[in-house]
Amino acid sequence: MPLEQTIASVRLPDPGLREAARHKMDFKTKPLGSLGRLEDAAVRLCQMQNSLEPALARRSLVVFAGDHGVAAAGVSAFPAEVTPQMVHNFLAGGAAINVLCRQQGISLRVADLGVNADFAPHPQLIDAKVRRGTRNFLVEPALTREETRQALEMGIMVFERHIAAGHPDIVAMGEMGIGNSSSAAALIAAVCGRTAAEVTGRGTGLDDAGLARKQAAVARALDLHRPDPANGLDLLSKVGGLEIAGMAGFALAAAAAGVPVVLDGLISTAAGLVAAVLCPAVSHWFFSGHRSVEIGQAIALERLGLVPLIDLDLRLGEGTGAALAINILDAACRIMVEMASFESAGVSGKS
Amino acid sequence: MPLEQTIASVRLPDPGLREAARHKMDFKTKPLGSLGRLEDAAVRLCQMQNSLEPALARRSLVVFAGDHGVAAAGVSAFPAEVTPQMVHNFLAGGAAINVLCRQQGISLRVADLGVNADFAPHPQLIDAKVRRGTRNFLVEPALTREETRQALEMGIMVFERHIAAGHPDIVAMGEMGIGNSSSAAALIAAVCGRTAAEVTGRGTGLDDAGLARKQAAVARALDLHRPDPANGLDLLSKVGGLEIAGMAGFALAAAAAGVPVVLDGLISTAAGLVAAVLCPAVSHWFFSGHRSVEIGQAIALERLGLVPLIDLDLRLGEGTGAALAINILDAACRIMVEMASFESAGVSGKS
Repeated sequence: MPLEQTIASVRLPDPGLREAARHKMDFKTKPLGSLGRLEDAAVRLCQMQNSLEPALARRSLVVFAGDHGVAAAGVSAFPAEVTPQMVHNFLAGGAAINVLCRQQGISLRVADLGVNADFAPHPQLIDAKVRRGTRNFLVEPALTREETRQALEMGIMVFERHIAAGHPDIVAMGEMGIGNSSSAAALIAAVCGRTAAEVTGRGTGLDDAGLARKQAAVARALDLHRPDPANGLDLLSKVGGLEIAGMAGFALAAAAAGVPVVLDGLISTAAGLVAAVLCPAVSHWFFSGHRSVEIGQAIALERLGLVPLIDLDLRLGEGTGAALAINILDAACRIMVEMASFESAGVSGKS
Repeated sequence: MPLEQTIASVRLPDPGLREAARHKMDFKTKPLGSLGRLEDAAVRLCQMQNSLEPALARRSLVVFAGDHGVAAAGVSAFPAEVTPQMVHNFLAGGAAINVLCRQQGISLRVADLGVNADFAPHPQLIDAKVRRGTRNFLVEPALTREETRQALEMGIMVFERHIAAGHPDIVAMGEMGIGNSSSAAALIAAVCGRTAAEVTGRGTGLDDAGLARKQAAVARALDLHRPDPANGLDLLSKVGGLEIAGMAGFALAAAAAGVPVVLDGLISTAAGLVAAVLCPAVSHWFFSGHRSVEIGQAIALERLGLVPLIDLDLRLGEGTGAALAINILDAACRIMVEMASFESAGVSGKS
């Protein structure tokens, strides 16, 4: 679907089911509210799946990959060649996200939105390349408006053509792209009205000098381009990334299809934030998988109204925190479906 | 094994493996340290399992059940009859812990250390009853010294006779016992030198008046008995519980057998704390499954030097947080075993 049609198709999860789901949860054999945020997640999943018997049998995760012109400015601890190398690692099954997807029974695909390399066809690789990396946004806009739209619609295509056919109960988004935490930081600063220092972290492991360089780069990009915080296309074209735009489109398409979306760390959360700029209703379909070490993520999450499910000091990306969180969400569903009620179990209520 | 022999058998996990495990983790295809606390957990599990290929294939969780004389003082939101009712619920498969153990592939047993009811034999029920509930510690010691030792050794027996034969890679402890959060609070206050107000929470859902009553009860018990913070038997006999003593014995037996132990919420953490009073080395075999809403747990965890793996505002007990945490620990093991190294994957290192 074209971008505008996808945005127009995003509805709110069924508010009518909220009370029934809450009621069903409240009569389970446990003190009221004692399963904490598992209960809230279960109620939200009931609403999203329009069912009091939610299930997460079919899970799908896509790693969106793209290169960044700004990587030339020394804003990452790793060289740009690591982006295609890691794509090969994903396809060979050796990365952290491969391990966690196997563990959690999650189907994994890699979408190339803009890696600066060519890949041989592979059953897990989705060719959605718009161009070989963004331009360096310290010098010029990262993408043209047309490229930005293409990347968003490639993300929509990834969901519609490659993921929707598997009838996923939930999807998650991860990413790979050397330099993309600078882009994510700039997007979050622009949308949330924060300074570069407030949103910029060490990424994959910058030292103090590297962090200062990265903060200066993010500040310079914001100053040079002054992206419009209310305009998703403007934000993405000026300081965005191809894989970030792809994730934003993917999230919109999933939400339009009524499928919950699990965000991962800083970069996928920035993509979710831009998707919510394009379409505020989309955030009602989001779960935050984990709290990243990266400081900008908390600012984006606050704006999105999300609290992460997991907090293990992760800062890897790839979708690793989202993959782990799917297990928590699965637990929430099973609690809603399988647990006995006070009445059915013959257990006395609160005295 | 008798208590003293069990205590004497607890060794520290292999310190010699620490460096090799850390080295193996550091050369995985990810930025150094980017998997945060998953990495630390993986290294600890290598040491505990004395292997650089740790695995959590066989998981076992025991719910320890017992009644509390202090329940008569109105310190719980639920009536005491709920303890045996919930045991029936566990055996029927309808409780939250049943759902989560099924989800996580964990073998579940229920050990009756002191429920005030008789149960028909059941394949999942372990009869380890010492007496039908503790005495009311507002009036007299909860248990005699002899009963306390029996309960500890019943816990050891539960591990050795019923769990060890399955060669568990990891075990977890949960509990059920109306009134047991008062006992746990008193134990934590006594061991950590805190006031009743600092360790006493709302348990299963007390209102303000109930909380004040419970705080006063914990304060009265501490004042009446003045348990010796350095004497595990004295602590448990004066303000403990049968299922808490059982868990302490179980944890000691698991550690003595070299099996990692996952603590759950307030009550199992209090049991772990008392086990560590009896045998300081035991805490090296512990993981904290989750951060409870109950305020006393944080104080006990600090003393034990543990940081919880999950924080979802749970306050149910039964082992629910521990069951979810096993999935995280399993992820840590698989990362250590399955992930590629920079060299094997042909990925460039930090520039």
